[in-house]
Formats: sequence, C-alpha cells, structure tokens
Amino acid sequence: MPLDLATFRAAHDRIRPYIHRTAVLSSARLNLACGGQLFFKCENFQKAGAFKSRGAVNAVFSLDDATARCGVATHSSGNHAAALSRAAGLRGIPAHIVMPSNSSKAKVRAVEGYGGRLTFCEPTQAAREATCARIVSETGATLIHPFENEAVMAGQSTAVIELLEDHPALDLILCPVGGGGLLAGTSLAAKALRPTITVMATEPEEASDTARSFRAGQIVPLERTTTIADGLRTTIGAPNFAIARQWVDGVATVSEEAIIAAMRTIWETLKIVIEPSAAVPYAAVLEKKVPVAGRQVGLILSGGNVDLDALPWLRKP
Amino acid sequence: MPLDLATFRAAHDRIRPYIHRTAVLSSARLNLACGGQLFFKCENFQKAGAFKSRGAVNAVFSLDDATARCGVATHSSGNHAAALSRAAGLRGIPAHIVMPSNSSKAKVRAVEGYGGRLTFCEPTQAAREATCARIVSETGATLIHPFENEAVMAGQSTAVIELLEDHPALDLILCPVGGGGLLAGTSLAAKALRPTITVMATEPEEASDTARSFRAGQIVPLERTTTIADGLRTTIGAPNFAIARQWVDGVATVSEEAIIAAMRTIWETLKIVIEPSAAVPYAAVLEKKVPVAGRQVGLILSGGNVDLDALPWLRKP
Repeated sequence: MPLDLATFRAAHDRIRPYIHRTAVLSSARLNLACGGQLFFKCENFQKAGAFKSRGAVNAVFSLDDATARCGVATHSSGNHAAALSRAAGLRGIPAHIVMPSNSSKAKVRAVEGYGGRLTFCEPTQAAREATCARIVSETGATLIHPFENEAVMAGQSTAVIELLEDHPALDLILCPVGGGGLLAGTSLAAKALRPTITVMATEPEEASDTARSFRAGQIVPLERTTTIADGLRTTIGAPNFAIARQWVDGVATVSEEAIIAAMRTIWETLKIVIEPSAAVPYAAVLEKKVPVAGRQVGLILSGGNVDLDALPWLRKP
Repeated sequence: MPLDLATFRAAHDRIRPYIHRTAVLSSARLNLACGGQLFFKCENFQKAGAFKSRGAVNAVFSLDDATARCGVATHSSGNHAAALSRAAGLRGIPAHIVMPSNSSKAKVRAVEGYGGRLTFCEPTQAAREATCARIVSETGATLIHPFENEAVMAGQSTAVIELLEDHPALDLILCPVGGGGLLAGTSLAAKALRPTITVMATEPEEASDTARSFRAGQIVPLERTTTIADGLRTTIGAPNFAIARQWVDGVATVSEEAIIAAMRTIWETLKIVIEPSAAVPYAAVLEKKVPVAGRQVGLILSGGNVDLDALPWLRKP
C-alpha cells in the first residue's frame, strides 16, 4: 500500500470506532520555562495506555475475513502485545503472543486481560523469533510486526493527524524513536499535511542507534542497553529507517537524568502519568537539544504504562 | 448574596477567563468493575492544581476596587493559599498568607511561586488566627476564608455546573468534604439544576466529623487526625454544615486502605495524578459505601497536588 495521506485517512476512518481521540494539553508554566508553546499529545490516555493501539487496530481490521480468521501473532512483549491482544479481541479472532519467560508480571497480566494467548520462550531474540515462526506456521496466524509493517505505520500516523487538526500551525514535532513505527507514520503524515514543518526524532543517549544510523547512512544496531526508556530499547527497523532518512530532519539524544527530570516535571505540572519513553521528547527541550523559543511545538507522549512501585526518582542510586 | 443559580452563573462568568474548563474522564474498565457509569471531573487539571482556584478567583474578583487595593489574606496552608496567591496576582493586589512554621517546602514554594506574601507563625490554630487578624488590621486586607465565605462557595459550585453541562443525566454526585466549601457549592448547584439528583458527601473514616455531625444534628469538631487525605483534615464550617444538612443526601466514610487503593487505581487506569483527598469519592465506590450499579455517577477529583517522593503505596507500614 502507498504510505500516503489517502492511506492514512483511510486508516483513521477504520480505527476511529475503536480508539480514543486523545487530548492535547498545554501548560503556561512549561511554556514560560522554555520560551516556546508546547502541545502535548496525550497517547498515555489511548486505549491500552499507548499509541500502539492505533497501529494494532489498523493492522487487525485491514485483514480480509479469511486471513483474519486464523488470528494474528507477535513477539513483542511491551505495549504492542497488549494493544494487539485488544485489537484481535475486538475483531473476535485469536492473538498469539510470544513473550520471554522473564517478562514482568504487569506485562503478562495486560496481555491476559485483553485475551491474548500467551506462549513463553527463552529470553533471547532468536528464541522469540523461532517460537513465533512455529506458531505462525502451525496456526496460519498473520504476523503483525510491531513496527516493520505498513498498516501499523499507517495507524500510528493518526496521532499526529489529530494533533495537526487541533493545532494546524505547529512548527516542530518531537517524536520518540524505538523501532520507528511511530516516527515513520508521524514524519510521513506531518510532512504531507504541512511541508514546512520540522520533525525531530528523540531517543536516549543510551539507545542512540537511530542517531548513529543517521550519521553512518546505514543501520547501526543497538547494543545492550539499560535505558530507563524501556519502550525505546529497540533498533530502528529497515523500512522505518528508509522513511526516516527521507522525512525526518534530525535526531536529538538525551541523558537518563533528563528523561527522569522530564517525566517528573510532566507528572507534577500536567498532572498526568506517562512512562519514561514518553518523556524523551520533553527531555530534549529540557536539555536544549532542539531550539523551541518562539516556536509552536508538538510533543507525542507515547504512553502511560509504568510500574507505580518502581518510580525512577525513588530508585536507590 | 443569595446562594442561588443566578449567583453561581454570575460567578462562572466572572472566573471563566482565569480558570480551566476541566476535562471529564471515563474508563470502560472502571465502569465494568462497578456496574455504573462513572464520570470523573478532573479538577486536578485546574489552575494551581485544585478546584480551590475557582472560589479564590471568584472571591478576589468580587471585591470592589477600593477594598481590593488593600489586598487579601488567609491562613490556610494548603491548596487555598496557593490559589488565593494566584488569584490576587491576576488582579494585581497583594495576598498575605499566614503559614505554620512547620509547613512543607512544597506548599511554601507554591505560594511563593504565585507571589504570595508569607508570614510564618507557631503551628497552632490560635497562632494562625491571631497572626492573620493582626495582618488584616495592619493592612486592611480582606480575609478570604477557605470555605466559610459565600463568594468562595459560589466559585466552587462551577465545577459541578460544568460537569452537568457535559453530562446532564447524572443520577448521583460524589463529593469530598473537608471544610465544606466544595460540598456547599456542589450540592446547591446540583440540586438547583437537577432536583432529582442525589448528592453524597464522602470523607475518610479517620476524619469523619461531617458524618458524626449529620448524626448528631450539630457540628462535632474533628479531633486530631492523620488521615492521608490531607485536604480533608478540617472540621466542616458552620454555614457549610447548614447548607449540607439541607441539600446533601448523606455522608459515606471510607478507610485509609480504600483511599490508597482508589488513588492508585485512578493513576493506573485514567493515567492521571490526583492527591489522596481526590481519591475519596472513588474509594466510596470501591468499598461499596454507595450503590452505583446502573447509575450515572459524577465524581469530583478535587486536586492533583501530591508529593511524588512520598507516594502512599510505597510507605513502610
């Protein structure tokens, strides 16, 4: 399918009954602190707690009936797994979710809560892929990759489409990047709707594969990382990187300290719960990695699924 | 002034430029859990982080120019002090705030951040009142009591007016009660707009002066309390009690455990930050103190000012 505005608008129409049109919040205090006007797109309020519901619903509801009947499968253990389980449940088809045996109980509970069928495997990338491939071949389920999938990217594009409907004069979009599904959809849709807009990817210094890939002109895989931004511990996908090179203006990297400070400031000031990955765009503002003075800036708050027993500012150093 | 709908609507017009019309949130999951439809009025998103901004702005902007010029004063140390400081700043007049010498740094910073003029005193009720009376007599400032003040009550009524504009078919309102400013405004306005509606006050068992006062038919002062709901550690005011006896259908009391569970559930499910006092109405749902099955229920989330370093579910028992 062509990844153009017509496709994105069709995706939006397809998913609208099943997702929230999320709020956009602002704060006079945060604007004063940076000299720009910040508009936070609250995907933490999205169904299943993250923007992933947009792509998952679009992918599931794009399947023809015969294909859909066999179900869907994935080996993501994060927000995509919960969102895909929910989307499959809405269509009344099975979702086969492969998770590493050391997954957190909260993630397992979220998938189970939405009716996902869990298979555990050894906690290695090879085991995850092999287990998922076996399930796909046994069941005929369709693999829905968390980001290397055009229907997923088209679904993720709808967050920035809503943001630009609400605030058409934005000069700059700050978007977190992990595998690059959100970044691909966001940059394609934002540039199509507003060619003069700047789109910046933001990622942790400790998971800066996209920044290094931009510099190298080819994907530089992420090595082991313990960044607090657990949603961004992923190497950017090949199709996602190709789109980002064409449409994304640059990559800003931020420190772990800035991510924690940004997360806490957003909780305290906007009175909302966001996960560490969602704090990365505002961390780039705090660390002055991107000029925002005098500009209207959209920041995508990607999700709000966080363990309230393990808040980063309460951890022992 | 008569505390009627005309007064409340005039208050709403007066304060509208200076306050947020706050969002109303719902959750399919929370509805499913209780069998009712819950509508959460998000005063945690209000200016200065609490509904108190409504009453403070109305009181400050109701003063005539000559009176206003001498400033306002109060001896509340909580959200009212910050809200009054902000309201006075908007009108360009001084706010004299008397705080006990052992006030938390966060509360002192909030008042200072809004330009309030601080005077510290011994941490006793007598010292607070004496210090405040001295400042009033020295400066000619107008005392704005946090709840025993009709302009304050009229301002607080506007939250439920907005809630009923958004959801006119509510059957039941759950409102926290401390001093009773919010409860007075809420019950008067809700019954005026919708005579068949039920209005229930909710308070901690450990600060159940309003429940005991209802039973006794006269105010039973609160003894020392350490309830986690710090905004509700106040005996209901005399005019507030008179209004509540006439217009409030009953008082539900909740355990500390239920307050903490309700607070955590709202953070996790609605992805918003609320303070313990704001969790008290939902705690009454969790503990089944009020029947909600099949009913449309409005819950006033009173504020979101909470110390992120001292979350109750992380405290050592």
